[in-house]
Amino acid sequence: MKLYDLELSGNCYKVRLFAALVGIELELEPVDIPGGAHKRPPLIDLNPWGELPVLVDGDVVLRDSQAILVYLARRYGGNQWWPDGAAQQGEVMQWLSTAANEIHNGPNTARLVEKFGYPLNKARALEVSAQLLPLIEQHLSRHDWLALGRPTIAECAVFPYLAVGWEGGVTLNDYPAIQAWIERTKALPGFVGMPGVR
Amino acid sequence: MKLYDLELSGNCYKVRLFAALVGIELELEPVDIPGGAHKRPPLIDLNPWGELPVLVDGDVVLRDSQAILVYLARRYGGNQWWPDGAAQQGEVMQWLSTAANEIHNGPNTARLVEKFGYPLNKARALEVSAQLLPLIEQHLSRHDWLALGRPTIAECAVFPYLAVGWEGGVTLNDYPAIQAWIERTKALPGFVGMPGVR
Repeated sequence: MKLYDLELSGNCYKVRLFAALVGIELELEPVDIPGGAHKRPPLIDLNPWGELPVLVDGDVVLRDSQAILVYLARRYGGNQWWPDGAAQQGEVMQWLSTAANEIHNGPNTARLVEKFGYPLNKARALEVSAQLLPLIEQHLSRHDWLALGRPTIAECAVFPYLAVGWEGGVTLNDYPAIQAWIERTKALPGFVGMPGVR
Repeated sequence: MKLYDLELSGNCYKVRLFAALVGIELELEPVDIPGGAHKRPPLIDLNPWGELPVLVDGDVVLRDSQAILVYLARRYGGNQWWPDGAAQQGEVMQWLSTAANEIHNGPNTARLVEKFGYPLNKARALEVSAQLLPLIEQHLSRHDWLALGRPTIAECAVFPYLAVGWEGGVTLNDYPAIQAWIERTKALPGFVGMPGVR
């Protein structure tokens, strides 16, 4: 299967990370974002939203990193990563929404401004991050993993922008439980990093 | 089961709407948000994030409207609303992320500023909305429903803030396909509205 990819995108990295953890072979197709390739055919036909990642697996074409994680885990990952039960799916899903909302608006946006010069509001992104990190710290001070007491796709959705958040000025210095979770995640068999993951 | 609820919250309405469509009986517990009840026990213990909705169903306690939709649909809604297959879950999930990200940052945020005086950036929220609505319009001009050719929890996640977006200055006047989908959704058996849904 093919992943339309940008090495420096944390959203693309979510998919690469999960694929590495469960042993899915991805054909990576690097996309020339500065050249606007994501806004032109063939990519804009695969994803009218003009964003990465995009996954193509036979007939299946998906945008959005969280949707791709659910798809891959359901199809190839087994029950461990995205379980079958209602309460379990709900528990993991809470963190997929956190990734799509607060992590996007916080650490991801701060990094987009700082590292790539996007014309977004960095002060607001730092504010969102400052509200978010204590909540995650509190959770991880009582739990080894985000959900279900084991690694799930919640880790793949949340880890990337927390791990590279320092590139946007969002450090984990005051959050020892998050730091410990970062190390636990890095120790998972098959783990791969991305530029900026220390 | 109990839903900690605010009548004017579109996020709470997502859950009320789904429950009505599938015939789940909810015990609604109105929360005094102006009085800060969501930031104090017992609610802050149920949801440290201090936000609504919160669902309590026996041992299951969930925050985040999308997570609650997945839980309820998986447990009580049957395959129609949140299917079992990988590609199908991925297709619906794309729209749950859209609800958590662009719809939150667009129509929802514009309404929070305009109707409730939140100190957020309305110009940016209108910009996000102006990017988002043509994409949804394009999709709905070719499809009756957001995913799978039938109503799913994607409708429950996306409908509320599109239907009340006019309260924040995000109208659907230029989007006939979205308007038609609004009417189709309102015609679903069991549909309920909220204040602001015309």
